[in-house]
Amino acid sequence: MKKNHGLLIVLSGPAGVGKGTVCNALRAVDDSINYSVSATTRAPREGEQDGVNYFFKSEAAFKEMIANDELLEWAKYVNNYYGTPLKYVNDTVRTGADIILEIEVQGAAKVRDRYPEGVFIFLAPPDLSELRKRIEERGTENSELIEERMTVAQAEIEMMAQYDYVVENDDVAKAVRRIRSIVEAEHCRKDRVIDHYRPFVEVK
Amino acid sequence: MKKNHGLLIVLSGPAGVGKGTVCNALRAVDDSINYSVSATTRAPREGEQDGVNYFFKSEAAFKEMIANDELLEWAKYVNNYYGTPLKYVNDTVRTGADIILEIEVQGAAKVRDRYPEGVFIFLAPPDLSELRKRIEERGTENSELIEERMTVAQAEIEMMAQYDYVVENDDVAKAVRRIRSIVEAEHCRKDRVIDHYRPFVEVK
Repeated sequence: MKKNHGLLIVLSGPAGVGKGTVCNALRAVDDSINYSVSATTRAPREGEQDGVNYFFKSEAAFKEMIANDELLEWAKYVNNYYGTPLKYVNDTVRTGADIILEIEVQGAAKVRDRYPEGVFIFLAPPDLSELRKRIEERGTENSELIEERMTVAQAEIEMMAQYDYVVENDDVAKAVRRIRSIVEAEHCRKDRVIDHYRPFVEVK
Repeated sequence: MKKNHGLLIVLSGPAGVGKGTVCNALRAVDDSINYSVSATTRAPREGEQDGVNYFFKSEAAFKEMIANDELLEWAKYVNNYYGTPLKYVNDTVRTGADIILEIEVQGAAKVRDRYPEGVFIFLAPPDLSELRKRIEERGTENSELIEERMTVAQAEIEMMAQYDYVVENDDVAKAVRRIRSIVEAEHCRKDRVIDHYRPFVEVK
């Protein structure tokens, strides 16, 4: 039987919902899922390795990747470019391994355009007041900025409609369990597996 | 937050694939899933309770259920009628509980017509030679009958296309785990949960 391709799993959600925490907890309990490595033009920090933490690129090399359509998505933050190399994703899923990409919602929307066969999971706050509390607890923003973030968060929750799944992050362990169930279930989706069974009905 | 409705999970698959074994194993490890109770006109056997093992009906009462469209599906075997009461399914899912229905493929197709929001899982043999071996091991059929069953099984495998998921029954414990993952993942499907989040974007 032909081996299944791996899945690209895109984990996104509003600012402050805990994407990083959930992703790290998932990484701690499940070593069968690979993590997407981003390309960036920012300088490596101490201990960071090329091809492990990031693919470190010059600005010219990064712009060439953009020009050659080699990035699933990219964005510029504070004078540095960040992006998701398509080749790394394709090379990984071709071996049958799954790969997870943790990304903000604008990036996820771009990935969806380029890679619609991915599994798009929206990490949702248990409720909006909880989100407000979490943002406030960061304690680094003034109240006006908090209101601004709430408006952004509301828009992002409306983006939920673009996803395949919604995982409520009421509890990190529960969120991790739900994500693992989604990955296992997606491997069983008829559209993904039916080709493997065609030989059974073609041969007697 | 409004409580989710439960799910109707339909487990089907070709003759001899092990639907009953997998369903019993699921029942043994997961008491959160209810089991559909069929209506039948056959006489109760010793120890069978009405409303637990079956809803025992007279032929007139059963035919009235058919006439009133109260059955998700029904069939006649050896002079007795068997069917799935829609009310029992609806009453169960309304409480938020999931309900599983183990049924042969023709019945599953009828349920799909009446209840498209169900989760349709096809239990598949690891491969066709394995199916042949399993049928042969029953030891009660002659070779001609085996060939006939194989033809039926091939047709049933073609029916796989009508399902949402394909779970390979290479191992009962693995099949049970996959089914439980599918149920958990389906509860996270965006289409099923997005209504719960609408209040977040309507109120400030």
